[in-house]
Amino acid sequence: MNGAESLIETLVKSGVEVCFANPGTSELHLVAALDRVPGMRCVLCLFEGGVTGAADGYARMAGKPAATLLHLGPGLGNGLANLHNARRAHSPVLNIVGEHATYHLQYDAPLTSDIRSIASAVSASIHTASSSQTLSQDGAEALASARTGMGQVATLIVPADAAWGEGGQVAAAIEPPRRAKVSSEKIREAAAALAEGRAMILAGNEATRRRPLALAAAVAHKTGARIATIGRNPRVERGVGTAIVERLPNPASQQIKALEDVRQLILVGEEPPVAFFAHPNVPSVTTAPGCNIIHLASVHDDIEDCLEALLAETGASLEDLPLQSLDRPELPSGAITPDSIAAALGALLPEGAIVADESITVGRSLYKATAGAPPHDWLHLPGGAIGIGIPLATGAAVACPDRKVINLQADGSGMYTLQALWTQAREQLNVLTLVWANRSYKILRDELSNVGLPNPGPTALSMLDIGNPALDWVSLAKGMGVDGRRVTDIDGFVAAVREGLAMKGPYLVEVVI
Amino acid sequence: MNGAESLIETLVKSGVEVCFANPGTSELHLVAALDRVPGMRCVLCLFEGGVTGAADGYARMAGKPAATLLHLGPGLGNGLANLHNARRAHSPVLNIVGEHATYHLQYDAPLTSDIRSIASAVSASIHTASSSQTLSQDGAEALASARTGMGQVATLIVPADAAWGEGGQVAAAIEPPRRAKVSSEKIREAAAALAEGRAMILAGNEATRRRPLALAAAVAHKTGARIATIGRNPRVERGVGTAIVERLPNPASQQIKALEDVRQLILVGEEPPVAFFAHPNVPSVTTAPGCNIIHLASVHDDIEDCLEALLAETGASLEDLPLQSLDRPELPSGAITPDSIAAALGALLPEGAIVADESITVGRSLYKATAGAPPHDWLHLPGGAIGIGIPLATGAAVACPDRKVINLQADGSGMYTLQALWTQAREQLNVLTLVWANRSYKILRDELSNVGLPNPGPTALSMLDIGNPALDWVSLAKGMGVDGRRVTDIDGFVAAVREGLAMKGPYLVEVVI
Repeated sequence: MNGAESLIETLVKSGVEVCFANPGTSELHLVAALDRVPGMRCVLCLFEGGVTGAADGYARMAGKPAATLLHLGPGLGNGLANLHNARRAHSPVLNIVGEHATYHLQYDAPLTSDIRSIASAVSASIHTASSSQTLSQDGAEALASARTGMGQVATLIVPADAAWGEGGQVAAAIEPPRRAKVSSEKIREAAAALAEGRAMILAGNEATRRRPLALAAAVAHKTGARIATIGRNPRVERGVGTAIVERLPNPASQQIKALEDVRQLILVGEEPPVAFFAHPNVPSVTTAPGCNIIHLASVHDDIEDCLEALLAETGASLEDLPLQSLDRPELPSGAITPDSIAAALGALLPEGAIVADESITVGRSLYKATAGAPPHDWLHLPGGAIGIGIPLATGAAVACPDRKVINLQADGSGMYTLQALWTQAREQLNVLTLVWANRSYKILRDELSNVGLPNPGPTALSMLDIGNPALDWVSLAKGMGVDGRRVTDIDGFVAAVREGLAMKGPYLVEVVI
Repeated sequence: MNGAESLIETLVKSGVEVCFANPGTSELHLVAALDRVPGMRCVLCLFEGGVTGAADGYARMAGKPAATLLHLGPGLGNGLANLHNARRAHSPVLNIVGEHATYHLQYDAPLTSDIRSIASAVSASIHTASSSQTLSQDGAEALASARTGMGQVATLIVPADAAWGEGGQVAAAIEPPRRAKVSSEKIREAAAALAEGRAMILAGNEATRRRPLALAAAVAHKTGARIATIGRNPRVERGVGTAIVERLPNPASQQIKALEDVRQLILVGEEPPVAFFAHPNVPSVTTAPGCNIIHLASVHDDIEDCLEALLAETGASLEDLPLQSLDRPELPSGAITPDSIAAALGALLPEGAIVADESITVGRSLYKATAGAPPHDWLHLPGGAIGIGIPLATGAAVACPDRKVINLQADGSGMYTLQALWTQAREQLNVLTLVWANRSYKILRDELSNVGLPNPGPTALSMLDIGNPALDWVSLAKGMGVDGRRVTDIDGFVAAVREGLAMKGPYLVEVVI
């Protein structure tokens, strides 16, 4: 058994089922091992940003890591932005990065680069295999690292000779460390803060899943606190039957206003809220001066256990909690606007949908309009690096083949990783992509005033205009084997969404707005 | 004057004329400064791999750096693979990477990442501005670094408050250090080695430009040495009237054979030849054991001065040198094959063409078939990170608006950075893109045997097959505003190439092969 085979078999035995790949010469033995070791589905992407974004989407929905397979430093570089997003989403991802054979590195061949430097910006741990005999153990350790806490990005660097060399042995699975329990002192401290009044529970990351969010909401309901999330969680379980929570606005000035009366802020799986970007003369910290911040449970703690304890401590009960009822908007008519799109989606969103949301500006009304839709999952953009929507939807669809994935996609950000549409066609993934074609980096237009540039000149405006020439998303999709259509009024939009929801496989709608 | 304005004015005064950009919030003041300071052309790309690859192409043809404008760590990550290529091409590139405001970094907002780590893998130097008062000086130093030697990648990190803060002052241009002269001892040593016989001059990088290559060839002609290049130089000036040189084959086993009789290897602007990848049981070093290697001039030395001295030392003369005469193949007919494509291009290549070559496997006959064409420039892929062809052509066309750029583009690698086609349409750049649609990662198919995998299984084969579904490059181009057509026989190919050569502006031909 060579090193590559021992690694793949170790990963399969440890529960890794999917590898998103864009391999090169240095990874060919790993690719070949997939034929010799059954149990790993290998999904090809035409660009590494697709690989890593799909691994993130898969992890968020499967609750376990996929492997990636990337070609040396440049391949890792191409995947870096979406690994940044995976890191911020606390998604478990096991990166496998090929490297030159150990003895070849000294010659500084053209593709040689400092892989560790690149990986260090996104990886909780970096593991470099030194030989075929130790590769599987390195892989088991990297996988345990990826599975630590809520999840993290672990990178395994595999020299070609560690893959092709003989003497590989399958390594035993390594269990990640158990999630830390929150102390009873902390629970009591939080309960005492809640009793002070003017309190808010801010739930993030795993705390936005159905049961933890209901527990937190029940505590808030009992104690008179507010309960909120920030609009960039990796996965929110929402819709009919889930807890009703506030969503803090993203713009710093609005977030400051939303938090101005909060005197006790209890963080569950969340960090203290700060501005996404600094703006001149706007504070970075969005909580009010004097607000008492209690770090109740970190992202990687045992969130559900913590919230059960807080429920008991405060005498709250899930039975008393009012839950979201079915409350859909009317189907709109007339022009396509962000509001009419939102109403249409709220009216049509099917039960069990997975929404991969990279809407950016067009999406501002979408979240509210879908709150009363049947139960669904909503995947936000925790890391802020645009170009994740199409890959994220791709990975989610691989994880959940029986559910409909709806990718709400701004056009500017969609162009970063459009290649993932081809993977959707190749794998016949069940993804409906709705492209908001406003033909502009609209978010940057909005930001100009925020950063103190209310009167931009023609060059600046031209840098934020992507409408010359206009992108033709139907042609782009067709070029990658995905059918689609363009709509310019809301009736056409509703018809196209219905069509996309009714079919299996990928479909794209360009929504001219 | 704010920091951003002082930086842009400093760069303009130092001769930087073009900025390839994909900005975000943290770069808006730099974008706005382009309106207030005249003299910098700003070219928008929809993905950062387009930005950095275009900067490389521009630098190779303009002989001076463009600036890039990239959004934080993720934007730099997206541009990293082509910065790797620029580093290996010794192209002068000034990266400008936006960063959070200095006081905002401590809050670890979502887009915060370790920019220095990412940049260090590709940058000869990294400069971080600490304030608006010092930003322009940091910029002048970074630019001098980029212009050092043949050229290198320098990265300037600009916190948002260093851009928007007042008190900026224009900094004086800083001259880079003078190119080092090669010592007369080294010249004599090389001349003595040449006199030994069985010698080869291996010319690389700037030594493959017209005059240095002629000087080196004249020396070889006089002394009976061979003269060769490796097929991955950033820019070769070739065709009618240039020196006739060997091109070493890229595959290691063939390169070893080509070098087996060489006992004296004189390197001019080149490193000792090594295998591109390690293959089991094939040496990494491709020169014969016992070959005496003389490092006559490094990439960054004064190459032309060195070769003039060697010419004098050996008594060689440019007058005696036989030069390439016009020698074009006949126009082929029949099926599309790599050889018929090569003959057609050899027959049609116009004078002054700039060939951006990311042909990979299809291109193996192209170089030879165009050797006797009218004078032209050939841009190879020195760094080996695929996904540079379309951006490289884009940048070359910005640098040389009066010349025809021909991008020979493999389909697999083209998909990495296809977004640059949109920039070609937006700027109406004079680029003819010929896509070799073999619908396969053919190079990896060829590599399977080399790495010891002659009998790949179905999964491995499927990972190297990008024909399911087939990419429709005409639709992809149309989606980004570039006209094109598909050809399936050589008559159609010839007609399409003629059409593309006759027109101004971008055009794409999908060549089904």
